[in-house]
Amino acid sequence: MQQVKESIPGYTFGAKEVPTSPVSLQALAQLKISVGFTQDDVRYLALAGDVLADQTKVIVAHWRSGIIASIPHLARHSRDPDAQALPEYLARSNRRFEQWILDTCRRPYDQDWLNYQQEIALRHTSVKKNQTDQVKSTLYIPLRDIIAFVTVMNDTIKPYLGAKGHTADDVEKMHKAWRNSMQLQIALFAKPYSDSKLALDEW
Amino acid sequence: MQQVKESIPGYTFGAKEVPTSPVSLQALAQLKISVGFTQDDVRYLALAGDVLADQTKVIVAHWRSGIIASIPHLARHSRDPDAQALPEYLARSNRRFEQWILDTCRRPYDQDWLNYQQEIALRHTSVKKNQTDQVKSTLYIPLRDIIAFVTVMNDTIKPYLGAKGHTADDVEKMHKAWRNSMQLQIALFAKPYSDSKLALDEW
Repeated sequence: MQQVKESIPGYTFGAKEVPTSPVSLQALAQLKISVGFTQDDVRYLALAGDVLADQTKVIVAHWRSGIIASIPHLARHSRDPDAQALPEYLARSNRRFEQWILDTCRRPYDQDWLNYQQEIALRHTSVKKNQTDQVKSTLYIPLRDIIAFVTVMNDTIKPYLGAKGHTADDVEKMHKAWRNSMQLQIALFAKPYSDSKLALDEW
Repeated sequence: MQQVKESIPGYTFGAKEVPTSPVSLQALAQLKISVGFTQDDVRYLALAGDVLADQTKVIVAHWRSGIIASIPHLARHSRDPDAQALPEYLARSNRRFEQWILDTCRRPYDQDWLNYQQEIALRHTSVKKNQTDQVKSTLYIPLRDIIAFVTVMNDTIKPYLGAKGHTADDVEKMHKAWRNSMQLQIALFAKPYSDSKLALDEW
């Protein structure tokens, strides 16, 4: 299975420069148990990958232009300090966002995946945000914004999962697998935030 | 509407000793927007409250005895350091857990609710865990365990929402409202964890 069709700016999955995650594979195994993430979910995520493969651009556009763009406290994270658009930043990070959908569905959740989860998490904190694309924007994305937006992604993904004529039961199982993966990933994304004041928070 | 039927040990909702949350009502309003939490969700949560009111004991028993008890890395948080059961601790915290279901459905998400969310969050961290019930148990519950367990609660609550003969559409809307509230609450629970090293984490 071809994982990545073309070169994506700043996409370093599996690359040597991505440090080993502080989360162990054993901790990940425990987390899967806590979430109730099963082999069934792995199978239905693979099916979701086939269903979503040619829809990722539309889905990310829906999330980014259709939802985030209209919520100023979320939109600012991909804008400059004067709230002006940064089209190139958006374009580059959208490409990675699209690939993340496929990685969620198709990648084995192994050491490389775990490492890149930590890398993605750090790119939302003050440690690494803006660096990959050399932009000036908000210093970090508060963890609450990430946690909250998952609900939006969960609610909006379902019609796309149903767009290729699968049975309602299959769509439901793909959706459950997706939601389970999202919760697993939030727990991983929360790691650097709960380690220390990487994202000074002025709620 | 009567909010609490009887005295619940350690349940201090609205009490003077609960400090004001560091999260403002304005930040909560933003968070609702990020989650997509609407007035419809408020209405369907109220309906869910009616549906769940006489089922909270069964639901919490399902979560605690049916699921958590069989997962050692979760069960330890309500056991003593030798992994022995603490029946009184469990009984007291189960009562609060049951009331939390009703509060989720029936309370207005106002200043008192916000304050108590922060109190609940702190009671999962090393700042306040075990204090309310004067027990010896794990020093804190890792944020990842809370985030992960929400998926289990979301998946298992649905049959209980459907147990009183509501239409599939109403059950779906109650379930969506429940999930939205859970994500809102996780974002709030994450607050003290992401403030500082309140829960030293050795993943």
